[in-house]
Amino acid sequence: MEEKKNLIVGQSGGPTAAINSSLAGVYSGAKHYGIKKVYGMRHGIEGLLAEKIIDLDDTLDSTFNIELLKRTPSSYLGSCRYKLPKPEAGNEIYKKIFEILEKYNIGMLVYIGGNDSMDTIQKLSEYASMISSSIRFIGVPKTIDNDLPVTDHTPGFGSAAKYIATSISEIVRDSNVYDLKSVTFVEIMGRNAGWLTAASALAQNKFNDGPDFILLPEIGLDLKGFIKVLDNKLAEKNNIVVAVSEGIKDQNGNYISEDEGNVDAFGHKMLSGTSDFMAKIVKTELGVKTRAIEINTLQRAAAHLQSKTDIDEAFNIGFLGVKAGIEGETGVMMYFDRVSDAPYLSIIRKCDINLVANIEKEIPRGWISEDGFGVNEKFIEYAKPLIMGELSNIVCDGIQSHISSLK
Amino acid sequence: MEEKKNLIVGQSGGPTAAINSSLAGVYSGAKHYGIKKVYGMRHGIEGLLAEKIIDLDDTLDSTFNIELLKRTPSSYLGSCRYKLPKPEAGNEIYKKIFEILEKYNIGMLVYIGGNDSMDTIQKLSEYASMISSSIRFIGVPKTIDNDLPVTDHTPGFGSAAKYIATSISEIVRDSNVYDLKSVTFVEIMGRNAGWLTAASALAQNKFNDGPDFILLPEIGLDLKGFIKVLDNKLAEKNNIVVAVSEGIKDQNGNYISEDEGNVDAFGHKMLSGTSDFMAKIVKTELGVKTRAIEINTLQRAAAHLQSKTDIDEAFNIGFLGVKAGIEGETGVMMYFDRVSDAPYLSIIRKCDINLVANIEKEIPRGWISEDGFGVNEKFIEYAKPLIMGELSNIVCDGIQSHISSLK
Repeated sequence: MEEKKNLIVGQSGGPTAAINSSLAGVYSGAKHYGIKKVYGMRHGIEGLLAEKIIDLDDTLDSTFNIELLKRTPSSYLGSCRYKLPKPEAGNEIYKKIFEILEKYNIGMLVYIGGNDSMDTIQKLSEYASMISSSIRFIGVPKTIDNDLPVTDHTPGFGSAAKYIATSISEIVRDSNVYDLKSVTFVEIMGRNAGWLTAASALAQNKFNDGPDFILLPEIGLDLKGFIKVLDNKLAEKNNIVVAVSEGIKDQNGNYISEDEGNVDAFGHKMLSGTSDFMAKIVKTELGVKTRAIEINTLQRAAAHLQSKTDIDEAFNIGFLGVKAGIEGETGVMMYFDRVSDAPYLSIIRKCDINLVANIEKEIPRGWISEDGFGVNEKFIEYAKPLIMGELSNIVCDGIQSHISSLK
Repeated sequence: MEEKKNLIVGQSGGPTAAINSSLAGVYSGAKHYGIKKVYGMRHGIEGLLAEKIIDLDDTLDSTFNIELLKRTPSSYLGSCRYKLPKPEAGNEIYKKIFEILEKYNIGMLVYIGGNDSMDTIQKLSEYASMISSSIRFIGVPKTIDNDLPVTDHTPGFGSAAKYIATSISEIVRDSNVYDLKSVTFVEIMGRNAGWLTAASALAQNKFNDGPDFILLPEIGLDLKGFIKVLDNKLAEKNNIVVAVSEGIKDQNGNYISEDEGNVDAFGHKMLSGTSDFMAKIVKTELGVKTRAIEINTLQRAAAHLQSKTDIDEAFNIGFLGVKAGIEGETGVMMYFDRVSDAPYLSIIRKCDINLVANIEKEIPRGWISEDGFGVNEKFIEYAKPLIMGELSNIVCDGIQSHISSLK
């Protein structure tokens, strides 16, 4: 990359607890490699098109602010869900994007995001090649869903998994308080891939025997069969906790919670929560107390429970993304290549963006227990290192501090 | 208390993140004062009646286990919601309870719980007086709801408030990611008193300007007026976060979410979540994106975010409850008498149980903002010290360790 060129970085897709650590890594990498101006696009490529561009030196002006940024959840720069059209020479949107990039003298664009964001990098680098632009396009992965191919795992997954495992261990305690039979369903994000739901298994240890069952979207659920399994389990144990993916489907591939035509107070058809649905069915069928707990937005935003492994890796993959661009790469996504589970060691590499964009990775069948209601040791060996370690929280007046929001 | 007598302790009502620290305090106090046997009743007074009694020496056999117990959420001994009948000489239930207490040579019964539990202590001490029993009955308060009278605050509130404030600060970050207008409703526990919902105000600091509004059960909600206020706020700010108590009522004192006759898939009338209800109304009325987030069970079980102030106080009030019994008190509840806000200092005293049982404490009107949509500096000065400080988490394989569950 020519020395006098600048860098622009954007964030896209759903927030995570680690995506700002990658932003901190990109910024620090740019500074390390002598890039003068580091711009941020507000609200991803949509903000770029509207020329909503900020100079990151204005706010990341101290090591302390960079440390705060690493501990701040959600997307500091804002996000978008914007799909670029097919790249064709002369397309107005691409023309406008490249005009703006030239105007700011950009030599490298780094985009931090999930599947759709890698699609953006792919298209921009394809268009750049068409018009023989020298601008480099680098993808840095993030998603709590952990469903990107090629990479061993995605930044953001480890922290979300740590939050899920910790919360499940607390819910298990909360569930066995009263001397009666109960089934608690805990609903976890991940519509098509069950990585995060499976992470609930990390709550099982010598102090804690839950969750008892894990229902994944990878396995079509035989609802009647599962209710029989629950009934048998209740004969030996009072209080059962089931971790359930929001996206579980029946054996015909239909979402479980679509079955009943729930209509809300305003006549809208509700995709009522999966856990709600399961709690009602089981209460009716087995006549025991049931509860539905939806672990909502906090599973992607709980920075106070960040995994240090995750935050360090998120930082490093951002930093090395800049290094790759400096070395001439473009149209690549950075990824983790795991060398060893225990001791845990991954190295950071780059791959052709075409191997990644628009492909989803599910949990291998061999990592799921034979009966389909849990995961086995292979999943645990894979996931455990990713939730290890705690960042020192920077606490003020009793709560974790974040970097000030952009206005 | 005669030297050769034993102590029995029970937990009752809903779980908190601090109730086990009070149990640890009672146990440690009993040991300190030379009480030989410390028994625990499983599932409160119900377990006592069924003679489900354990010897706490069997599991609290090391300082390490006591430290784990302090960090374990929910009720280690189990809980119940059991209301004793009016105490009358000759009543079979009381006869049975006192027979069992005599059998185990009990000199003191300590009950850790909320309003209903203090009712239990009141009735047992009244009956003891009728039959001239020398057994002492001591109440140790706990409840995340913070709605007990006499005491400045209740153990369990500070940790729940810290969890709420931290989570709200993360949800505020999560809410301002996209470049559009949105209103997020976050539902918080507390059916009749808004202490915990008000604690969301502790999220407001120089890094974070949310929540924007706080809806308390103490203030009858003018729904139409509030929607107008939201509309005005949306003109100046894109993303609004509203903390809302599950128990908000309209100006006639009816629960807001009872208004619409929601019926679930099985024909049951649903008390649909208050946040769900608000999100739907506002979406319809203002046409903006809305979200409903229910901070469920975790607000009472999130031991990983315990307030050190809360946990230390919970321990001490249990310990000093035993001291009070040793000194001859009975029919009392231990409570906090605040001496100073900053630096924070409370002392632990005892009061007649009749001043406490079955009375609920609401937030004073003078601590709520004039428009009724928030709290003022008086509430902040009151609540802030209670969420201060962090315990060292005992982390193993990436998640906080708990003491092993009783079987």
